[in-house]
Amino acid sequence: MIHALNIAHVANSAVAVLHGAEIDALRSLHPSDIAETLEESGCSPSQIVEVLVQIGNHTASDAFGQLNIETQQACLEASNAQTMLRFVENMEPDDRVDLLKAVDEDVREAIMPLIAQAERNDIRRLWKYEEGTAGAVMTTEYAVLPQGITVANALEQMRLQAPNKETIYSIHITDAQRHLLGIVSLRDLIMSKPRATLETIMETRVISVPHDMAEEEVAAIIAKYDLLAVPVLDRENRLLGIITVDDVIDIMEAENTEDFQRISAMVPFEEEYFKRPLPRLFWSRFLWLAVLLFTSLISTTIMEMNSAVIHQMVALAFFIPLVTGTCGNAGTQSATMVVRALALGEIGPGDVFRVFRRELFMGLALGGSLGLMAYFRVFLQDHSMILGWTVGAALLATLLTANLTGALMPLLLKKLNLDPALTAGPFIATVIDAVGITLYFQIAILLMRVIQ
Amino acid sequence: MIHALNIAHVANSAVAVLHGAEIDALRSLHPSDIAETLEESGCSPSQIVEVLVQIGNHTASDAFGQLNIETQQACLEASNAQTMLRFVENMEPDDRVDLLKAVDEDVREAIMPLIAQAERNDIRRLWKYEEGTAGAVMTTEYAVLPQGITVANALEQMRLQAPNKETIYSIHITDAQRHLLGIVSLRDLIMSKPRATLETIMETRVISVPHDMAEEEVAAIIAKYDLLAVPVLDRENRLLGIITVDDVIDIMEAENTEDFQRISAMVPFEEEYFKRPLPRLFWSRFLWLAVLLFTSLISTTIMEMNSAVIHQMVALAFFIPLVTGTCGNAGTQSATMVVRALALGEIGPGDVFRVFRRELFMGLALGGSLGLMAYFRVFLQDHSMILGWTVGAALLATLLTANLTGALMPLLLKKLNLDPALTAGPFIATVIDAVGITLYFQIAILLMRVIQ
Repeated sequence: MIHALNIAHVANSAVAVLHGAEIDALRSLHPSDIAETLEESGCSPSQIVEVLVQIGNHTASDAFGQLNIETQQACLEASNAQTMLRFVENMEPDDRVDLLKAVDEDVREAIMPLIAQAERNDIRRLWKYEEGTAGAVMTTEYAVLPQGITVANALEQMRLQAPNKETIYSIHITDAQRHLLGIVSLRDLIMSKPRATLETIMETRVISVPHDMAEEEVAAIIAKYDLLAVPVLDRENRLLGIITVDDVIDIMEAENTEDFQRISAMVPFEEEYFKRPLPRLFWSRFLWLAVLLFTSLISTTIMEMNSAVIHQMVALAFFIPLVTGTCGNAGTQSATMVVRALALGEIGPGDVFRVFRRELFMGLALGGSLGLMAYFRVFLQDHSMILGWTVGAALLATLLTANLTGALMPLLLKKLNLDPALTAGPFIATVIDAVGITLYFQIAILLMRVIQ
Repeated sequence: MIHALNIAHVANSAVAVLHGAEIDALRSLHPSDIAETLEESGCSPSQIVEVLVQIGNHTASDAFGQLNIETQQACLEASNAQTMLRFVENMEPDDRVDLLKAVDEDVREAIMPLIAQAERNDIRRLWKYEEGTAGAVMTTEYAVLPQGITVANALEQMRLQAPNKETIYSIHITDAQRHLLGIVSLRDLIMSKPRATLETIMETRVISVPHDMAEEEVAAIIAKYDLLAVPVLDRENRLLGIITVDDVIDIMEAENTEDFQRISAMVPFEEEYFKRPLPRLFWSRFLWLAVLLFTSLISTTIMEMNSAVIHQMVALAFFIPLVTGTCGNAGTQSATMVVRALALGEIGPGDVFRVFRRELFMGLALGGSLGLMAYFRVFLQDHSMILGWTVGAALLATLLTANLTGALMPLLLKKLNLDPALTAGPFIATVIDAVGITLYFQIAILLMRVIQ
């Protein structure tokens, strides 16, 4: 199995001319592999279009559909509407709308009149759904049949519908107004008696989603019920489209990348690593780091306010990284656990009390044992009881706070309808630094007073 | 659509007796929802088995298959082999082997002789595959046909095979020795002329995976090519089984959870949040935190070694959290980006130089601008040029180091065949703390010498 070809030489020549053998080799690849080859070849958008035109037939259209949306956009903007028409017409309806939304208005206005009337209406219908909802990721190319016909007749109709449908494995039974009555899988159709009618074999307890459901929730439903596709309905139970499992995998990957980026305090990016434009990446990272820098100045201010205590016992300053570092880590642990459990639906905002009890206990156990370890380390080296008790007690108090903050903050955000992943990671760590240093000095001052 | 029932009262009674209406209500749920209801009811394992027996028929078997493996294991160990036989026999082959591997040996020895001979051979065949490989997650219940038959005949055979196969949407064409010759989708079968033979319509350029491929790689292939299932082959190209897209979704979710846990420095857990046993959770968190605590003592030691400098200028200590915190955040950002890009296959270990160049540039830009901000903040408040230059220069140097370490460490681990996610997060942050503090004092000492 060949997975990619090297066609870098195309990128270096003025016109994209490939030998007949090269075109044949490209044509024999899977459309996903053709797309990957083109993306990595370094070809300009217009060269990519030239190669696709030379490949011709359905393979070229499928390969175009597998390109990144940024590359598709560049191709569309670099070539004339007439050349691009075939590629755009053969795209999946939801991807096509995303692309047409992305391109310059004049490019859109050049190609829209060329698109067939029925397709154009489809584009207008899909245009209105908000990004990130079921309506925006669904396809309108679903298999549909009336309920009165027989299984034999249904199989005959599927033979006709198949070429234009994204999947014929879920067949939707609707009335004349497109109200969804039931679903028949192609498997059930194959297994049923040819003379049975669809209404007798269809599954009427259909798992469906409303058009305004968030795409992550749709993904969770498909994952939970092991579905190949789920129908999308409007408020009157009319069938608008379907979402297939391969789209759900893409949604899951995008969603996970977003969570990872949030955890590491970055504005989420959709492009691949090497494709992210450096200036935009700089700002996305700089902004967060600057915010966190100013947050960490709180710690500095607290230390400045306590400079008298530090002058009295400079060694106090030495153990600050130990206390803040360890507690930041513990807070990140509990935050990550809760963010992930929320994402997988294992816990909800209603579980606040159970989470609190669990993390209170865990914070006491971890803080107590790590505090004890720190006490002995300090005492063995510095032979100062005050310093040892200060470090140990501060570690316990801060770790407990950090653990609870880390666990409860995502639940709070979830209740406020914000993304819980926003809290995990550096932000929590920086807040915990400030809390930790404050507690540290308060405990030190208290102990100095008690002992002296 | 009802998604769950409250049957908590069962958990409180000695025997699990449900009213006829309750059983009917349970029976009308989707098996996934029945499993969820049982998991959340607080019922004991033997009560869960009693309820499943009352539900009866295929629904009960399907619901048992949807329970967590820990619950399945507890049920199997709490009930007699005769009762459990039906549930175990109806499980998917790969899940069944996982369960039989998990239970106590005497429980396994009690149930194995009761299982039908053919199934028992199947279990022995699957037993040998290493966990986490394609062989361990594949199912052996795939649709298979010889190449010589006609489409009409094939459809007839599929009608017979369907009840016992996990999917009939991918049909595998093999010779007598089970060598894979090609694949026909049910869709193609429906669309072809009834008298065509399978060899004329089958796709011979099949995307397949070897039995020892890692499950994440299988998931990536299914995601890339939008497949519903992928065949698993041995070294001689013989068909061993198939992996379906719903299993791939589970693999992706598990894989992502693992990465999240690694990023937050925890030993990965498979159980749901509330089901993790507290003692095991404590140790998994404590171990990492203790390691990180000792790592952070390096910072303490460095500060102790530099106590003369701190005595000379106590204010130096105030800005340590700012430098280490900001640089730790930047290191986490670049580490997370690279870990994620590796997981999605966007970059490989061979891209070291490109990543280095990119992150060198980014580190200089971020370190320069944030260092300048820090300089002005320090100078405005403390009116000390030395302190301002020290903080600013230390921030630039440490951020550059942090950014490069964060980006290159995961690539190094990948090359050593370790999980790149191991580096991201707290570990990097703690190492960077030590590096940052060392640079900080070196720069301070240098500047004091130059200026004084």
